[in-house]
Amino acid sequence: MAKNEKYEIGILGGGQLARMMLLKAHELGIPACALSTDPKDPAAQVTNSWIQGDPKKTADLKKFLNQVKVVTYESEFIDADKVVSLLKDAGARSYPKTQQMKLLQQRKTQKAWLDSVKLPTSPWLDSEQIRSFSNLQSTLGSKKIVMKKNMGGYDGYGTFIVEDEQSFQSIDAQLAEQKISYVAEAFVPFKRELAVTFARSRTGQIVKYPIVESFQTDSRCDWVKGPMRTDRHLRFLNKIQRALTSLEYVGVIAFELFETRLGELLVNEIAPRVHNSSHYSLNGFNEDQFSMHIKAVTGRDLVAPQCFAGGFAMKNLIGSGIKTVSLKTKKAVHVHWYGKHENRKGRKMGHVNALASNANAALKLAENSVKDMKV
Amino acid sequence: MAKNEKYEIGILGGGQLARMMLLKAHELGIPACALSTDPKDPAAQVTNSWIQGDPKKTADLKKFLNQVKVVTYESEFIDADKVVSLLKDAGARSYPKTQQMKLLQQRKTQKAWLDSVKLPTSPWLDSEQIRSFSNLQSTLGSKKIVMKKNMGGYDGYGTFIVEDEQSFQSIDAQLAEQKISYVAEAFVPFKRELAVTFARSRTGQIVKYPIVESFQTDSRCDWVKGPMRTDRHLRFLNKIQRALTSLEYVGVIAFELFETRLGELLVNEIAPRVHNSSHYSLNGFNEDQFSMHIKAVTGRDLVAPQCFAGGFAMKNLIGSGIKTVSLKTKKAVHVHWYGKHENRKGRKMGHVNALASNANAALKLAENSVKDMKV
Repeated sequence: MAKNEKYEIGILGGGQLARMMLLKAHELGIPACALSTDPKDPAAQVTNSWIQGDPKKTADLKKFLNQVKVVTYESEFIDADKVVSLLKDAGARSYPKTQQMKLLQQRKTQKAWLDSVKLPTSPWLDSEQIRSFSNLQSTLGSKKIVMKKNMGGYDGYGTFIVEDEQSFQSIDAQLAEQKISYVAEAFVPFKRELAVTFARSRTGQIVKYPIVESFQTDSRCDWVKGPMRTDRHLRFLNKIQRALTSLEYVGVIAFELFETRLGELLVNEIAPRVHNSSHYSLNGFNEDQFSMHIKAVTGRDLVAPQCFAGGFAMKNLIGSGIKTVSLKTKKAVHVHWYGKHENRKGRKMGHVNALASNANAALKLAENSVKDMKV
Repeated sequence: MAKNEKYEIGILGGGQLARMMLLKAHELGIPACALSTDPKDPAAQVTNSWIQGDPKKTADLKKFLNQVKVVTYESEFIDADKVVSLLKDAGARSYPKTQQMKLLQQRKTQKAWLDSVKLPTSPWLDSEQIRSFSNLQSTLGSKKIVMKKNMGGYDGYGTFIVEDEQSFQSIDAQLAEQKISYVAEAFVPFKRELAVTFARSRTGQIVKYPIVESFQTDSRCDWVKGPMRTDRHLRFLNKIQRALTSLEYVGVIAFELFETRLGELLVNEIAPRVHNSSHYSLNGFNEDQFSMHIKAVTGRDLVAPQCFAGGFAMKNLIGSGIKTVSLKTKKAVHVHWYGKHENRKGRKMGHVNALASNANAALKLAENSVKDMKV
């Protein structure tokens, strides 16, 4: 790159999602940079165009935006108003757009948007609207209630499941004291969790990855397998597609779904970014989600994702806090390691992708390979 | 990495092969660095652990070797003796071993080795042994003679095809004046060129990629497609495998082959490294050649390469010298761009991989996608 040229894309953040986006930008030859605080961050290691700075500090954000043509995100929890105020002066664009990030980063506005576009989701109430726990239960039609912080929740953090007045009051009081607003949702007794990832280009082209099953342990993704049969869910997927068109969304976007015992689908959560549930796409696909997102936000055409194997699976490598990690395995799987400086218990340290003739065989291969490793 | 820790692997060189090895080392979470002269080099852009230095300068090489556990190469033209003299003090290992690099980097010793392990190759003579052009023609049994520099040739550079006494004498004199030794080989009127890549681990495990057809324009690889049928060549492939075992070779190694009109195979050239003819393996395979090489030289187990599509192809993106490159295409292919600072006519700037139900369909897809681009 010449000295006064701008990076075609700048990624706000330095974690594993930023790292994998950078690796794919390198592959595609698209000049990219990332902004984060610590030179030991996963993304900082894989480029010579990492920018040190705190995305929360205006001066750092400004410096970063001045160097990029398009800013994109590895987390939805950005200060959208601050980004808006700096974008124009910087002559940069944001994809997804800042108003889309603002809409989808908040649990309240995300749930309200789902209702407005008629995408089925569990009944919910804004914390402001709650009169009593028993009233909440009857309004939402559920004995169990899920309380979710309006902002900043992930991997089960910021989520509380309550079944009695006392627990509800205790959490309500704690959140009120911290001035944290939340939503209350009916608990969905799901049969299993599914997920599906879409991408929309700047010219409105929409493509989607297969529906996958995802399995959570302690509210954290443990594995994903696919493809699941989609024929019975075609109407649901078309509805998502129409919703993304009406939102004029740009980039990759992941939908976490509940499948009820009756086979009905409900949207659980939406992530306006590349997502753990689609890490499988890095192997055996004609386009992975990271390349797809980069192409979408930089104004390139998208190709419909296609898997060259009959089945695929992804197994997360979750940290145990040990110092000497071993990733060796004789199994034919793909290890993706994030280079995190500290191995902490429960932390996502990497993942393994496997391909086989069907989803179950791929999952078995991935799980067996992980037994050889020490993470 | 902690401050006094060594990189698990160090790559001598900063071109596209080093770049792609680094990208895969990042993916695998294997601490890696590269040594080259220019911060704008393809490999320098994709890591924060690039080391500036001239591989030809002893001090720079020493500094580099002191920081790595294993050194490996993107080019066979290293100063093997110098590396040997520094390895022990640095406490580092070389894979491939320096004596293997020395053997295979020289045309004379490479041809002699092929003869010794009974791998068919064209008749040849060392420049020292040549008495006259007519004698050369009769000894090699060929009217056309190929003169190849003993060291440093690539992409047709350092290769001369002569058919008459006058041309022969002129090149012989030029090379003698520059004190460059060469070999003279019988020209092989091949039906087509094939290639096959093997990998051998530190514990002696050997795996191989499919046989592919490669097509050269102006002595430079234009495209590769595969897989080709291997059943009739099994004995030939087994012979290569035995030769690699006897050599105790470690790493990826590529064999460029001639297929004669009678269907016989001859080894044309050997490259003791990752190679352009296997760039296809970056997409649709359970293991690409760059990950394979890194695993082999760092003492990991290897998995047998497998393609998840019926056919694959690679098309090189050759520079035309233009300033404004466009890599956009609506075709479902994978672009790999090397980020070279200067677009020079005839330079390998990147490549495109395509997958399809068979080799010809994949090649057609790759070639069509390139028509959309400006390189």
